[in-house]
Amino acid sequence: MRQNGTINDKWNRRTLTPAEATDRLLACVRPRTGFEEVPLAEAIGRRLAVDATTKEPIPHFRRAGMDGYAVRLEDVAAASSEEPCELEIVEHIPCGAVPLRKLERGQAARIMTGGMVPEGADAVVMQEMAEAACGHGREYVRIRKADPRGTHLTPIGEEAAEGTILLRAGQLIGAGEMADLATLGSSRVKVFRKPRVAILSTGTELLDVAAPLEPGKVRNSNAYMLAALIASAGGEAVPAGTVPDDCDRAERLLGELLASDADAVVATGGVSVGDYDIMADYFLRWEGTTLFNKVAMRPGSPTTAGVWKEKLLFGLSGNPSACFVGFELFVRPALLAMQRSYAAADWEFAAYLAEDYLKVNAYARYVRGRAELREGRVEARPIGLDQSSAVLSIKDANCLIVIPPTKSGIRRGELVKAIRLGGVIVP
Amino acid sequence: MRQNGTINDKWNRRTLTPAEATDRLLACVRPRTGFEEVPLAEAIGRRLAVDATTKEPIPHFRRAGMDGYAVRLEDVAAASSEEPCELEIVEHIPCGAVPLRKLERGQAARIMTGGMVPEGADAVVMQEMAEAACGHGREYVRIRKADPRGTHLTPIGEEAAEGTILLRAGQLIGAGEMADLATLGSSRVKVFRKPRVAILSTGTELLDVAAPLEPGKVRNSNAYMLAALIASAGGEAVPAGTVPDDCDRAERLLGELLASDADAVVATGGVSVGDYDIMADYFLRWEGTTLFNKVAMRPGSPTTAGVWKEKLLFGLSGNPSACFVGFELFVRPALLAMQRSYAAADWEFAAYLAEDYLKVNAYARYVRGRAELREGRVEARPIGLDQSSAVLSIKDANCLIVIPPTKSGIRRGELVKAIRLGGVIVP
Repeated sequence: MRQNGTINDKWNRRTLTPAEATDRLLACVRPRTGFEEVPLAEAIGRRLAVDATTKEPIPHFRRAGMDGYAVRLEDVAAASSEEPCELEIVEHIPCGAVPLRKLERGQAARIMTGGMVPEGADAVVMQEMAEAACGHGREYVRIRKADPRGTHLTPIGEEAAEGTILLRAGQLIGAGEMADLATLGSSRVKVFRKPRVAILSTGTELLDVAAPLEPGKVRNSNAYMLAALIASAGGEAVPAGTVPDDCDRAERLLGELLASDADAVVATGGVSVGDYDIMADYFLRWEGTTLFNKVAMRPGSPTTAGVWKEKLLFGLSGNPSACFVGFELFVRPALLAMQRSYAAADWEFAAYLAEDYLKVNAYARYVRGRAELREGRVEARPIGLDQSSAVLSIKDANCLIVIPPTKSGIRRGELVKAIRLGGVIVP
Repeated sequence: MRQNGTINDKWNRRTLTPAEATDRLLACVRPRTGFEEVPLAEAIGRRLAVDATTKEPIPHFRRAGMDGYAVRLEDVAAASSEEPCELEIVEHIPCGAVPLRKLERGQAARIMTGGMVPEGADAVVMQEMAEAACGHGREYVRIRKADPRGTHLTPIGEEAAEGTILLRAGQLIGAGEMADLATLGSSRVKVFRKPRVAILSTGTELLDVAAPLEPGKVRNSNAYMLAALIASAGGEAVPAGTVPDDCDRAERLLGELLASDADAVVATGGVSVGDYDIMADYFLRWEGTTLFNKVAMRPGSPTTAGVWKEKLLFGLSGNPSACFVGFELFVRPALLAMQRSYAAADWEFAAYLAEDYLKVNAYARYVRGRAELREGRVEARPIGLDQSSAVLSIKDANCLIVIPPTKSGIRRGELVKAIRLGGVIVP
């Protein structure tokens, strides 16, 4: 019995726009509550589970910005090359030391970059503007000129006041974030547990990567590609093997995976309406809620997603390029959202199309492309073979060019929307 | 005894331009010969040590691009909705199966996307253009129309001929590269051994990250920042601790590190001409060749590099921003070059300056900035606090804006060179 245009009709699916499909999916994603605490050195590449806040002002002491002399500005205001002012050096302050005395009128302290400026001083004069001398058992310095451009003294809290939120939960921890966390004294860091994502490949045609080729069969490239994509989205890929096009075996395995500790299951292949499309059949029978099973896009229109007890199940195309696009449009946003790390605006940009794209289509096309920055312009060019079965050229893309539904194609020089790809670990 | 403007004069150093310094450095870097072989799944984020070449054409059989019917074009050429052509279905070919017979005139084979097209057939007609029927114990299909836009049949070798180099040595392995390697059957992959980089922090002012703050002292953020930067350049960071400003201890430790299995040593702090600048002193006395110790750039002009028995020693500023810039300009290119992965062009781009930058300087300035793509334009804006001592804002930068030596500053809207930052590992 066929219903028209519902989620439970394999042949007559209700078509959603990509934006509708994404909204429906993200509405089901809850940010993770589970986190783990790791030593700071192991936090690289993880995502913060809680905000990071200063507990002291930074810097927490008045810091010298130059090698030179701490002085009182009033003492040196009138100094010039012709009439330098002479101050007594009362102390040497290396980095890490605490000044022993307050600077009085007529006094200076030798100080190094990063050193703690003594009380009483209100500027540091760089050593190139001064000359030290000794006499009568004392040290002196002749200041030719204070720098009119600044005091070379970083006040307490100039970088951040106490209680400033430096990093928000969800922030990916790279080099700059490591510097912040170290400065905060975060020797241990709370990071989100990585979402575990099981990868199940379906298809009688799939060979193990180590197997010799056979006529009609192909090596399973999707599982390895997905493992890299999942890692690049902060997830942990859990390989779950390959099943041939056998509904019962697939159903058993999917049931096990959904009941496992995986947060999401990504299956490839079998989502279309062919004779052996076992994932399409599974989504008709399962106990979960199917969120969408037809999206107005090329490639990958039969891309399917559902939710069962807060676990996500994705049915991506077995065609490599379509699988790739399905991941970038749906799985990556979902994994990032679990880690409070998804904002569509971070991923979208506008680019000038670098060559005509004249394919006509009723659906939006997500064309693998290469964005380049040329003399201040962003240009995006479709890469070679634009078939959903293409596998080798996926590596050449750094964006998806969004070609809206069109009857006449899009011309070179028009501004198009593009979506950054995150599947390359930078650099 | 002072010489003028030589590498062995701490006070009167010979100044190189950044480009000269980079050239001198890269001339000393040999690509690594050592590689390791890892299972494909562990190759993510590594760099290929050898080219990857196809051993078979890809695809290696004629592949159907649609669910539908394999036909002979001559049979269906005249078909129309009014007068469909009727063919006998002689075989069903699921994915992964080998056709049992050659297609003769008047015959068709039911075939699924990715299936192997039988001999004799020269097109696949999509199922939406056909209707199957049974009669007299036989199966038939009525074809209304072959797709005039294409045959939906991917010929052998369309993606790559046998013997095609798909990936070059040095290539970073992301999602697309994983797909390629899997397709090639590379179950084990030769990747460069990660360059080992020892990190030595110098400075009496440095506190361990877990220590409570003390007046005049700061937590060591550079070591953690460098660990992330090194990882993002494909290296393995080897923490070598902290030494106070004590020449003998530093010398002993540096000797040990250079004699260790590290490929490079990065020291921070003490490279300038202050009273306790122990790295500057070390570079005057060591047995290696100092390549440069003064670069016409801000921040980080005293950045120093040398080589001893093919091992690199870097003396970066202890000021966090200057340390960061020194890494990006010199250490990253060197580490990438060791892995055959450095090309300056990959890192540079032109951007429109988003606001005036009016600081005057005789040296080029490498200003931490944020590049954004706006309506097809690349704009770069300096980020907040532009002091070499700034640490917290390093995370906000995604490029270094290169401000050439100027007497009047650079105005908003001018095109400037910028350098991408690679310090964020994605993830």
